[in-house]
Amino acid sequence: MTISQARPTPSEPTLHHMAHALRFLTVDAVEVAQSGHPGMPMGMADVATVLFDRVMKYDAGHPEWPDRDRFVLSVGHGSMLLYGLLWLTGTPDLSLQDLKDFRKLGAKTAGHPEAEMLRGVEATTGPLGQGIANAVGMALAERMLNAQFGDDLVDHHTFVMAGDGCLMEGISQEAVTLAAHLGLGKLVLLFDDNAVTIDGTTQHATSEDQPRRFEAAGWHVQSVDGHDMDAIEAALLAAKADDRPSMIACRTVIGRGSAAKQGKPAAHFGAIGAEDRKAMQTMLDWPYGAFEIPGSVLDAWRAAGARGADARRDWEARLASAPGRQGFERQISGTAPAEAAAILADLRAAAVGTDPVATRMSTSRVLNALFGVMPELVGGSADLAGSTQTWPEQATPLTKGDWSGRYIPFGVREHGMAAVMNGIALHGGFIPYGGTFLCFVDYARPAVRLAAMMQQRAIFVMTHDCITVGEDGPTHQPVEHLAGLRATPNLNVFRPGDMVEALECWELALASAHAPSVMCLSRNPLPVLRTDAGENRAARGGYVLAEASGPRRATLLATGSELHLAAEARALLEAQGVPTAVVSMPCWRLFDQQDGDWKDQVLGPREAVHLAVEALSPLGWERYVGRDGLILGIDSFGASGPAADVTRHFGMTAERIAEMVMAELARC
Amino acid sequence: MTISQARPTPSEPTLHHMAHALRFLTVDAVEVAQSGHPGMPMGMADVATVLFDRVMKYDAGHPEWPDRDRFVLSVGHGSMLLYGLLWLTGTPDLSLQDLKDFRKLGAKTAGHPEAEMLRGVEATTGPLGQGIANAVGMALAERMLNAQFGDDLVDHHTFVMAGDGCLMEGISQEAVTLAAHLGLGKLVLLFDDNAVTIDGTTQHATSEDQPRRFEAAGWHVQSVDGHDMDAIEAALLAAKADDRPSMIACRTVIGRGSAAKQGKPAAHFGAIGAEDRKAMQTMLDWPYGAFEIPGSVLDAWRAAGARGADARRDWEARLASAPGRQGFERQISGTAPAEAAAILADLRAAAVGTDPVATRMSTSRVLNALFGVMPELVGGSADLAGSTQTWPEQATPLTKGDWSGRYIPFGVREHGMAAVMNGIALHGGFIPYGGTFLCFVDYARPAVRLAAMMQQRAIFVMTHDCITVGEDGPTHQPVEHLAGLRATPNLNVFRPGDMVEALECWELALASAHAPSVMCLSRNPLPVLRTDAGENRAARGGYVLAEASGPRRATLLATGSELHLAAEARALLEAQGVPTAVVSMPCWRLFDQQDGDWKDQVLGPREAVHLAVEALSPLGWERYVGRDGLILGIDSFGASGPAADVTRHFGMTAERIAEMVMAELARC
Repeated sequence: MTISQARPTPSEPTLHHMAHALRFLTVDAVEVAQSGHPGMPMGMADVATVLFDRVMKYDAGHPEWPDRDRFVLSVGHGSMLLYGLLWLTGTPDLSLQDLKDFRKLGAKTAGHPEAEMLRGVEATTGPLGQGIANAVGMALAERMLNAQFGDDLVDHHTFVMAGDGCLMEGISQEAVTLAAHLGLGKLVLLFDDNAVTIDGTTQHATSEDQPRRFEAAGWHVQSVDGHDMDAIEAALLAAKADDRPSMIACRTVIGRGSAAKQGKPAAHFGAIGAEDRKAMQTMLDWPYGAFEIPGSVLDAWRAAGARGADARRDWEARLASAPGRQGFERQISGTAPAEAAAILADLRAAAVGTDPVATRMSTSRVLNALFGVMPELVGGSADLAGSTQTWPEQATPLTKGDWSGRYIPFGVREHGMAAVMNGIALHGGFIPYGGTFLCFVDYARPAVRLAAMMQQRAIFVMTHDCITVGEDGPTHQPVEHLAGLRATPNLNVFRPGDMVEALECWELALASAHAPSVMCLSRNPLPVLRTDAGENRAARGGYVLAEASGPRRATLLATGSELHLAAEARALLEAQGVPTAVVSMPCWRLFDQQDGDWKDQVLGPREAVHLAVEALSPLGWERYVGRDGLILGIDSFGASGPAADVTRHFGMTAERIAEMVMAELARC
Repeated sequence: MTISQARPTPSEPTLHHMAHALRFLTVDAVEVAQSGHPGMPMGMADVATVLFDRVMKYDAGHPEWPDRDRFVLSVGHGSMLLYGLLWLTGTPDLSLQDLKDFRKLGAKTAGHPEAEMLRGVEATTGPLGQGIANAVGMALAERMLNAQFGDDLVDHHTFVMAGDGCLMEGISQEAVTLAAHLGLGKLVLLFDDNAVTIDGTTQHATSEDQPRRFEAAGWHVQSVDGHDMDAIEAALLAAKADDRPSMIACRTVIGRGSAAKQGKPAAHFGAIGAEDRKAMQTMLDWPYGAFEIPGSVLDAWRAAGARGADARRDWEARLASAPGRQGFERQISGTAPAEAAAILADLRAAAVGTDPVATRMSTSRVLNALFGVMPELVGGSADLAGSTQTWPEQATPLTKGDWSGRYIPFGVREHGMAAVMNGIALHGGFIPYGGTFLCFVDYARPAVRLAAMMQQRAIFVMTHDCITVGEDGPTHQPVEHLAGLRATPNLNVFRPGDMVEALECWELALASAHAPSVMCLSRNPLPVLRTDAGENRAARGGYVLAEASGPRRATLLATGSELHLAAEARALLEAQGVPTAVVSMPCWRLFDQQDGDWKDQVLGPREAVHLAVEALSPLGWERYVGRDGLILGIDSFGASGPAADVTRHFGMTAERIAEMVMAELARC
């Protein structure tokens, strides 16, 4: 493919040549795919070149070096910019063929960058604004890890490239204000200020003064010509020098180089075509063919990619002799300390036989117990520390300047919190958790989804998980939320029925290295039903909590705060001579992964009456109770009133369950 | 209860007396409920009093007067402020007893204000930040209706009260920037700047300069002592006079009046108790008992509530003689014009027998066809006009200063868009629609939920509704979204299988006066399967598209882009001698509402094989196919690649469906 002998190769490749390599790789990949977004990579190629050649600390051959600078492409549709950078700098796992396979099924070069598929991609992006919050999480993780291990091991910057779309999304505001509040001075946001969106110029939809907005949040702000290499470098160095997070508004021309499309919305998406490519070759003095990068330009890029090798080796030497080495390596590897298992087992054992207690208390129990041995456990809440039990007793708040604090005050920013958690997890070294009310998981849904897609161990602590919220009423009472969460791939959704189970679920969430977890926890005290704590029974997702006294005539399935109702209903039914089993189903996903025999055994004989009770939407329970099974759920929104009244109003009582079963038995 | 004879009643009640009435009603109601949030009402009582006594245009006895000023309490937890105002000003439907029943089951005085339960409540609030965007929608609706009917009929302001929590939520940024961009000068935001949140002072979680932030967005900004009545009035009048949206930062003391709690986070929630009430009585010179409002103070409030009666009567007189009266009344009543039904019927008939066409094109067809006869149909998209087909051909864009435009450029603000749509619907006079990709309904979930709760006719146009999105990959391919939406009470979720059905679903959405709709529409062309267009068959949610040639041995259920696969599979199966029916299920909610006979008839004999196919999460289909039914769905995230490759990769083919059925028949 390379026919550079036929054409002169620049003897002293400049930054412009390097940037043009990015532009033409983009044009050529989009041309082959006949699909993709060339405008942003072509516009930001100069900024990216300066960043990767002159400023960023990285060693392309070692994309997992923990102390590398991070680069997040929040404008994920500009993925060819990232793929071009990764290939040109010599990142392993990526070949020129991969670029030619852009957007083909199975290629690492997916339409939007997928961190789970390709090393070097720091975050899966595409849904706008997420990358900004991920970068805030990474910059926060850097400061937290630095507070633990010092400058010798942890001292790097985080760069994030964002567009108008990212900045219009509300999540950007949550991330931006949090970053300034927490004093994340090593975070640099590069705003692709091209004044164009899909529907036209930005003027059609926004009139915001972005620099002023960032200043209001407490950021260091600069504006620069995004095609002036020296100015870009100066701005980046000034940004690094300032102790506030920095925003650089880079005035760029979208689709820069395309004769027909540069500066126009049409540059956003779609191939520019053979004719325009020719015009572009003339304009940019680039006589090379498709995917052809002249040797000297490629050499320059590879040199840029290797520029950080010495720094990386020095760092490795420092790590080898660092007193904190073991702890650092353990945290980075995501391995739990040896003591953790016994601590959790003790917690579970201690819960057996105790008084009723809200399952939300499991969070503080776990966090308090593990506080000393798992410094990687960091988190906070969206201004609901007490309600969600997410503030460990020994934790001081994390503040600007003291990043050793272990309670992160996320503020009333659920979406930002979840996406920042993703960034913390992606950075490595930590297991992030964050709390709010289950109802408000809705605010954070796009980030929860990405946690699942990116296979990150983030723990979303969602309390006040049903109508027993009581007086706060329907706006605060989740109904439909679990259905959507349960349908999300690679997401553990736990709704434990008592304290023992809650602690089991916490153990599973902590051990889930490649999937996030949502902990749905009760506000109100629940009886401790489990009398055993040896085996982690929640690990199989569902199990028989109480077997029937004889051949089963009824199987009651329940989760969370309804589990004790099922247990009480069982007593009523057994008293009437109906052998009844109670099945607890704290995690559907794990149950569905069990073998058929286990599932059949738990669900019991088909001819028995099956009733599922959950104070939430009934959707999905038919999977276990069948088309004719009984489901006691809630088909409407909730209601405001004292919890006991609301519960009765919706028929969530043991008596009702028993009546429904008896009526069904009479009918059959 | 009133024992005012025993104590002096102020002979000339001042604004302070009136404000104290609000404070004590709050304290007393929270005391009885032993639950609730007194801090905010006590802090903002002075601002509210000035607003309702001196500034706002309303006639309390007629809470549905279309030209009233709107007041939205975005800080919904401060509901007692609103209930106090409504009762004191003499709003119908609300008695002192209702205040005493605060937060009791069945009371109109729910924990958070519910528009669907009580006239005078302009929006259901509680989830923070929503009310700001609702208010933007109302202010936008006012300008749009004014552009149609002029100052004589439409000339009112919108006031919204928001707290630190509201302003930390990302949705506030989306709403605030959109409001300024659209030039909504008659919108006034009253910021309860009390510097306190649940977890402590705001300093713990935010460092933002709110006035500067609003200025950056283009707002008129003032700061005022929130307890200085004259200063508040002056600021409100200045806000009204400015042609930008106005933000007034009201520096207040949370829980003002409580000896023990004022100025402290503890004031946020919970009763202040008898002792503190006594101290407060002394401090505020208020010798009255629980729920006791001295006659002269109540008179002053009732006078305030009646202050707008003349203006209302004048307005009614203007309406009576207005040339646009009929149209105005029709739009406000939410009744469709007589011509609409025939236009829609014609559209459906014209679609029969045509070439394959993407169901997303139904949107532009409907909008174009109804453009002339339904000026109430207004909407736009989150920067995806072309993709979502939400820009009618004849529509000019709505811009600052020209609010007659019928395309609303919502910008990349999905959450803001949905909540603004809610505000437009709540205002009355319009049916709002808004488009984005189905995947990004996640960004808007909290607002979609509230649309359902508030029973508003908002139409969420969600295109690119499955893996056939293709190259954009898993970040842009919905999988789990429908499960969560289908589980949401009072929400119509439509996923039509061809153009005829899509037009039927649009007809149902337009007619759904008390429930919002989500239109899940295909990006790619789908064959037109329906050969009839007389009856709206989607109205029953599910129906037999093609009956089996003999006694059914298989029933295939499908929606959307998989419906034609089912139809093709039916042909394959029938060719192999297996009588097979195809059931289309465009709306589960409507199907579930049908009587049992209809459902049995559609789903067919149990002993037949049931297979559901939908290129989304299988969760929930067991309701129709049973525990042993076959479901061809997608249990993982999607993949990036050309649509045909991705579809094949996930086995979404007619051949696969037929094979699954044949294998099951062989097994049985």
